[in-house]
Amino acid sequence: MGLKTKQEYIESLRQMKPTAYMFGEKITNIVDNPRLRAGIEATAATYELASMPEYRDLMVTRSPLINEPVNRFTLPPSSIEDLVARVKVNRKLGNWVGTCHQRCTGLDCLCSLSIVTYDIDRKYGTEYSARFTEFLKHVQKNDLTANAGVTDVKGDRSLGPGEQKDKDMYVHVVERREDGIVVRGAKAHQTGSLSSHEIIVLPTRALRKGDEDYALAFAVPQDTPGLIHAIGRSSLDTRELDGCDMGNIRYSKYCPTLIFNDVFVPWDRVFMCGEVEFASEMVLRFSAFHRQSHGGCKSGKIDCMIGAALTLMDYNGTAKAGHLKQKVIDMIHRAETLYGCCLAASYEGKKENSGTYFIDTVLANASKIHEGKELSEAIRLMVDVSGGFVSDLPSDRDLENPEIGHLLKKYLKGVDEVPVENRIKMYRLVEKMAMESADTISDIHGGGSPEAHRVTIFRETDTESKKKAAKRLAGIEG
Amino acid sequence: MGLKTKQEYIESLRQMKPTAYMFGEKITNIVDNPRLRAGIEATAATYELASMPEYRDLMVTRSPLINEPVNRFTLPPSSIEDLVARVKVNRKLGNWVGTCHQRCTGLDCLCSLSIVTYDIDRKYGTEYSARFTEFLKHVQKNDLTANAGVTDVKGDRSLGPGEQKDKDMYVHVVERREDGIVVRGAKAHQTGSLSSHEIIVLPTRALRKGDEDYALAFAVPQDTPGLIHAIGRSSLDTRELDGCDMGNIRYSKYCPTLIFNDVFVPWDRVFMCGEVEFASEMVLRFSAFHRQSHGGCKSGKIDCMIGAALTLMDYNGTAKAGHLKQKVIDMIHRAETLYGCCLAASYEGKKENSGTYFIDTVLANASKIHEGKELSEAIRLMVDVSGGFVSDLPSDRDLENPEIGHLLKKYLKGVDEVPVENRIKMYRLVEKMAMESADTISDIHGGGSPEAHRVTIFRETDTESKKKAAKRLAGIEG
Amino acid sequence: MGLKTKQEYIESLRQMKPTAYMFGEKITNIVDNPRLRAGIEATAATYELASMPEYRDLMVTRSPLINEPVNRFTLPPSSIEDLVARVKVNRKLGNWVGTCHQRCTGLDCLCSLSIVTYDIDRKYGTEYSARFTEFLKHVQKNDLTANAGVTDVKGDRSLGPGEQKDKDMYVHVVERREDGIVVRGAKAHQTGSLSSHEIIVLPTRALRKGDEDYALAFAVPQDTPGLIHAIGRSSLDTRELDGCDMGNIRYSKYCPTLIFNDVFVPWDRVFMCGEVEFASEMVLRFSAFHRQSHGGCKSGKIDCMIGAALTLMDYNGTAKAGHLKQKVIDMIHRAETLYGCCLAASYEGKKENSGTYFIDTVLANASKIHEGKELSEAIRLMVDVSGGFVSDLPSDRDLENPEIGHLLKKYLKGVDEVPVENRIKMYRLVEKMAMESADTISDIHGGGSPEAHRVTIFRETDTESKKKAAKRLAGIEG
Amino acid sequence: MGLKTKQEYIESLRQMKPTAYMFGEKITNIVDNPRLRAGIEATAATYELASMPEYRDLMVTRSPLINEPVNRFTLPPSSIEDLVARVKVNRKLGNWVGTCHQRCTGLDCLCSLSIVTYDIDRKYGTEYSARFTEFLKHVQKNDLTANAGVTDVKGDRSLGPGEQKDKDMYVHVVERREDGIVVRGAKAHQTGSLSSHEIIVLPTRALRKGDEDYALAFAVPQDTPGLIHAIGRSSLDTRELDGCDMGNIRYSKYCPTLIFNDVFVPWDRVFMCGEVEFASEMVLRFSAFHRQSHGGCKSGKIDCMIGAALTLMDYNGTAKAGHLKQKVIDMIHRAETLYGCCLAASYEGKKENSGTYFIDTVLANASKIHEGKELSEAIRLMVDVSGGFVSDLPSDRDLENPEIGHLLKKYLKGVDEVPVENRIKMYRLVEKMAMESADTISDIHGGGSPEAHRVTIFRETDTESKKKAAKRLAGIEG
Repeated sequence: MGLKTKQEYIESLRQMKPTAYMFGEKITNIVDNPRLRAGIEATAATYELASMPEYRDLMVTRSPLINEPVNRFTLPPSSIEDLVARVKVNRKLGNWVGTCHQRCTGLDCLCSLSIVTYDIDRKYGTEYSARFTEFLKHVQKNDLTANAGVTDVKGDRSLGPGEQKDKDMYVHVVERREDGIVVRGAKAHQTGSLSSHEIIVLPTRALRKGDEDYALAFAVPQDTPGLIHAIGRSSLDTRELDGCDMGNIRYSKYCPTLIFNDVFVPWDRVFMCGEVEFASEMVLRFSAFHRQSHGGCKSGKIDCMIGAALTLMDYNGTAKAGHLKQKVIDMIHRAETLYGCCLAASYEGKKENSGTYFIDTVLANASKIHEGKELSEAIRLMVDVSGGFVSDLPSDRDLENPEIGHLLKKYLKGVDEVPVENRIKMYRLVEKMAMESADTISDIHGGGSPEAHRVTIFRETDTESKKKAAKRLAGIEG
Repeated sequence: MGLKTKQEYIESLRQMKPTAYMFGEKITNIVDNPRLRAGIEATAATYELASMPEYRDLMVTRSPLINEPVNRFTLPPSSIEDLVARVKVNRKLGNWVGTCHQRCTGLDCLCSLSIVTYDIDRKYGTEYSARFTEFLKHVQKNDLTANAGVTDVKGDRSLGPGEQKDKDMYVHVVERREDGIVVRGAKAHQTGSLSSHEIIVLPTRALRKGDEDYALAFAVPQDTPGLIHAIGRSSLDTRELDGCDMGNIRYSKYCPTLIFNDVFVPWDRVFMCGEVEFASEMVLRFSAFHRQSHGGCKSGKIDCMIGAALTLMDYNGTAKAGHLKQKVIDMIHRAETLYGCCLAASYEGKKENSGTYFIDTVLANASKIHEGKELSEAIRLMVDVSGGFVSDLPSDRDLENPEIGHLLKKYLKGVDEVPVENRIKMYRLVEKMAMESADTISDIHGGGSPEAHRVTIFRETDTESKKKAAKRLAGIEG
Repeated sequence: MGLKTKQEYIESLRQMKPTAYMFGEKITNIVDNPRLRAGIEATAATYELASMPEYRDLMVTRSPLINEPVNRFTLPPSSIEDLVARVKVNRKLGNWVGTCHQRCTGLDCLCSLSIVTYDIDRKYGTEYSARFTEFLKHVQKNDLTANAGVTDVKGDRSLGPGEQKDKDMYVHVVERREDGIVVRGAKAHQTGSLSSHEIIVLPTRALRKGDEDYALAFAVPQDTPGLIHAIGRSSLDTRELDGCDMGNIRYSKYCPTLIFNDVFVPWDRVFMCGEVEFASEMVLRFSAFHRQSHGGCKSGKIDCMIGAALTLMDYNGTAKAGHLKQKVIDMIHRAETLYGCCLAASYEGKKENSGTYFIDTVLANASKIHEGKELSEAIRLMVDVSGGFVSDLPSDRDLENPEIGHLLKKYLKGVDEVPVENRIKMYRLVEKMAMESADTISDIHGGGSPEAHRVTIFRETDTESKKKAAKRLAGIEG
Repeated sequence: MGLKTKQEYIESLRQMKPTAYMFGEKITNIVDNPRLRAGIEATAATYELASMPEYRDLMVTRSPLINEPVNRFTLPPSSIEDLVARVKVNRKLGNWVGTCHQRCTGLDCLCSLSIVTYDIDRKYGTEYSARFTEFLKHVQKNDLTANAGVTDVKGDRSLGPGEQKDKDMYVHVVERREDGIVVRGAKAHQTGSLSSHEIIVLPTRALRKGDEDYALAFAVPQDTPGLIHAIGRSSLDTRELDGCDMGNIRYSKYCPTLIFNDVFVPWDRVFMCGEVEFASEMVLRFSAFHRQSHGGCKSGKIDCMIGAALTLMDYNGTAKAGHLKQKVIDMIHRAETLYGCCLAASYEGKKENSGTYFIDTVLANASKIHEGKELSEAIRLMVDVSGGFVSDLPSDRDLENPEIGHLLKKYLKGVDEVPVENRIKMYRLVEKMAMESADTISDIHGGGSPEAHRVTIFRETDTESKKKAAKRLAGIEG
């Protein structure tokens, strides 16, 4: 027990026996599958940095719950300082892995549950909070990674959960037993589900009377019986499998669809069951935290993109082009905007009833609205600055080919003082950061759709006070 | 001595005898001139709120220097809390007056001088810091308003100060006497110079060897001999003069050009004189602080704009139009972006050698870059939501005319339950907030040109670490 | 009869005796009122250019109707060439006057009526087309300017015309007599109503059964009994009245609210009366034409703005600043986008049943959507490039003041080789183009609200064929 | 001879024996390689549509040169109608293939050469024009596809061709023989080089005295000795190779790097050789034509994207969501803007000395500037509207897997009335259109970098006349 090393983390995953499919085949050795391993390595970085002296203070803190040092990804915030650390840890990690590190979603579930289970118990005298606290101790003591099972597949979006023709389109209870419940349904976009030890499930939307079976929160190990990970395709997914032209030579991302094919959950892992009026709060809390997580890690990813663009300016001989420098400034501006709004959301946080601290939702959503629009712009700018070889650079295999390899190396050369191999590697990284779908689509749809962020910012804003201010200046009474 | 009431502030201005011209005429009674009074009222609001119980905690704090309660606009920050208060005070005031309150620039000078005079003294053994501290005590004890004389008129922009054909295009020393110096030159865009007790002058740009006469910082009362306030035109400037169709019935803004026509400055008011290498630091500190001030007050102004837009939706019968609500969300998003970046700049501030706290310049400039682009967009959105009467609403004088007044009131009516007068008043306020040049142009050029903000953000960013991160991921060594 | 000179045009207006109010007073001498005269001069430019040899070919063509040379502003298009000329004439004029020339709206009414009266007659056997043709001959033979009375005041926007508490919120028939009809109501934003000879009224929206009284099109002289022009305020309206600091020394714009206080219209001037199902077509045709007119003149206005920005770069010594040049390119791009889309709308026009040519509405609205968003951006760019003196330049009266005039001239000087007066004049022009409300608000609300343009573009697009194309590529049958 | 059918076209390619490498291996059977075939099919569509009755009039015209019907992709424009057809043909084809059809670049070379060879001959008495005309007859008579070899690899971008350490970084003459020349160098981003019969080479930039060896234009068959096609990687390139999850089930794009490893070109195929001062004109003409080609085909591609987004709204049950409809309108607006500016560029074209018509370059570049920025925005909007499954949809192989296929089909179901397979197919198409690098990067870098488009628009604009207009309005003489 205690903080895991990167190696211990990977070995702990090796002990698990999940049911997983990819490209039509069952995958049995998860950790040695190159595609999945690249994702696992990204999560492993959260363990690695925690053991590096220069980052330990950033990554590790003492848990008041177990009174031991813990990785910050297992700690619901109990102070403004903790809220701020969320952002800085994520920016560092986004920068370190250049993609999604996949460990934030679990933390965001822990944060949300630590607030809402307390609130439910206060109303209903239930014991969710105590159960959750035991689970949290388990997570902290074993330095576990958890995954957020939030996004139901939803079927017909114009209908609520109970109105669907197939009632399984939202995860729900199909049987209540003495020892626990049986659940059925599916959650989409489960980033890093196989890199996690635990899957935490929350409802995906507000619910109403009659939806009790859907008002569910629980946690299960990722290899629990009946749970199936169907790993979807992403745009560059064969690169790691082929071991060639990976771009980011260390890290990647994958996103299974998770099917709960009548999965049993013991009562001590059930954190909400039927309290429909709290579904909304659970989603809101989770979404706010998760949208903020994005602001941190995506600003860190833009940092990598800025670095790649500037490096290619060096390599291409365009370092002095004023118009390219302007574009880099546009990229910096976007990174700092995400970061600034998220940081402010932490600093302006407040203590909730349970003692957990919650962020300012307006500022967190302000950051996410920028992400949803500006990350694609930052990518466009990186591609513009970098040049056309982002799209059709010959394969490393061609470069190794004895007949044409030397010719390609001759003609792909940039400035004299930089080895051609470096220029090629940097273009490949840019391709990865620009064109990899698993990560870039999350800029738009991660943490809920862009419209959800906008609706939230409007609902959470005190519009009446603004009207009042305008009326006073206009000379309108009342 | 001590905190002034609003009335005491206005009376204190009445005692001063500045030389001022407007529309070709000399103005002798400043405080009763309706155009100038509307600007003075905006600054007076900083006194008024300090005496209102609900805002006193926000506006007033204890100065460690004089150990008395002071208005925050006289206090260089000595803690993160002080830095944060800067933003919140400005947002509140921007919202309260719906335009520029004009008192931030003086504070931003005080902040900058408290850092830089200390640094100069450390290098040269000069006594600027002590002089400045005495001046600061005077400002605090008398609750004075100061104005920032920063923007030189500059002549030919392609030439430095010493290269100009007319050497007076930047304020400079023309005579060094035993009791002080004589300065000549002009400062443009001196928002609220006649609403201030003191004019603080700083250099407007970095200087180099040979520019010693231009490396100047000092303070003089606004009515010191030789100082001329030439009040420029703004787009709605005759409205207050006519006492009709003012829009904002309480507050406005005016911006003189200040001419230093051989003004004497005693040595105890001289805070830099010849130390060319510190000109750059002085400008940078001031600019960073002032750009942040904008983020606070302009988000407060957008709050008014949002309030006006929503109120007109109520009055026009368009409150349920989804596309208009989307535009209001776009306005909210802009306000919160300015605010979030500025707040983060405060929270991430650091203590300087002098003990004064300084903000994060990248985040402050990130906010200002948004302001320079997005305020005009927020205005456009407000006009879009409000409707076409922003432009050509008949005058209140027409509404009072017995022949057509009743017809205009009949036809300008919106929803039944709102008096037509209220709708008219709100449109007039929107006109003021959208089309008044003195305030809206400062969205773009206040705190330096937009390009200056961009250059700053690039220079203050650690680009090498970003390149290094990209190279690590691409697999490039070294 | 025949083409009027500029002087004849102005004299013809002098013969009219409209009822007009401004700032609470009745105005009897319209053409010599400096504020109104600046607007009349802008319309007069459409006569002036027609008599200048270098523009005559652009402005004058032969009418097939009267077989005489006519000003293009009296000619419904009967060929693609005529449609194209619309755009080029407007760009030239927008460039020539630097504001709104105010003669396009009447033409857009003539175009619309020439199509729709024909269509109504075909369905109902009415004689609107013949009446209209007589009216058109009158307009052409006398080279008259007409004004478009389209925008009703609308009252509560959530209610239709017949649902309003006050039934007069949309112009309607209050009496049908043997010799004509009596109408009541008001039209807002009647740009140049007093610079016009005739007021043409069209419905402002689609109508339905029961709205027959509102389904109205007609024309009356601007001085017909019962018609009242209430000239609204614009942001710089006192400048022309004071004869000082006008910026654009030649031209301006004004926008009355027009009140139809029981106005009699003889039958031969009634072009639609009760045919509710054609109201929609009338609005659509007019709107499409008018939105296109904007694309022409506003690109011409941006041309002036570009010229002003570049001139100030010359005057300020910033002509070599790369970042400013980039902003000028952004302005050029916007001008050409408006122009390109509008031109294409003409070239892709089609002949209607009546023989009149109609433009492509999607392309015309594509241009207008850009205008609604990008004109404010073009203004922002101009202000950015020009510098801060857009906002608070001292008055010409101050420059003439013997005590400070010489000092202001000294300190407002830019590069050595340019007289200070020229720099001041150019800043004043920029202020006019940036901050004058009558013209700039029409960028947003002219030709209907921005949302109207968007709704139109969607409705007129063949979305089914696009779905079909996507399905074919995806391999979906049917 | 004469117009080829699609089948004849493919068979004609089968007869060629190019030297090609992909993923480290030599490819001998080009037309049956699934990845390349998907690209060839896209070009084949230009033949297919020419033989379909409903598109024949659009695609086929009579060549005045050979007096036979020809495909428009072999015809330099000799009228405005021809210029307009360029845009309409490209929009249709972009819509038909949903990616790049790859035949425009060759036409753009033919257009440019038909103008510039004439101009060179006029100055030097050379016979390039006659040679080119013979080549053009050959192309027209055999309905050949040509490819534009323009983009040199460039080495160090801060150096000109002759300043490079390795002189081969721009294609140049290494030997002049009696029967022809030998050339060396490489051209990057050679879209569809293996789908073409001929490779036409033009210089990539303006040249000066001393660069004579680089001032080259010529044509060679794609399988000429010494010419090597190194097919680069694109983001989804293994999908066609695997025959699974292709998205666009018919068409794709590939972009080789072309190496001229001492390629012999007989004199009758040399169209410029040493006339350095014409390099600039050649590039400008080609670039203008090619940037316009983009405006046509990319608006057609956005049409597909709109269709896909709307279809997924139908399939997901979100067809009535107002905010999604707004996003579709934003997509339509972008498509029509590209189209409108390009169309106008054609309609405003002018006849050149050679008789070939040339487009308006400002309007063509205005369109391209939009493409460079707005295509990525259109993609972002499509992804936003479509939903998160753009990124991680399980593979068709998983859907066919007996263990989980039925579960995936159950959970991926949208609205009841649409087969789940269709929804999956449409998501896959969206993934293709959003995340395929070969096509999307060309939105940014195709036809030169975004900065090149901006520089062009500035240089081609008459800025002096704009300054003059502003000065006239400001009252500045001279």
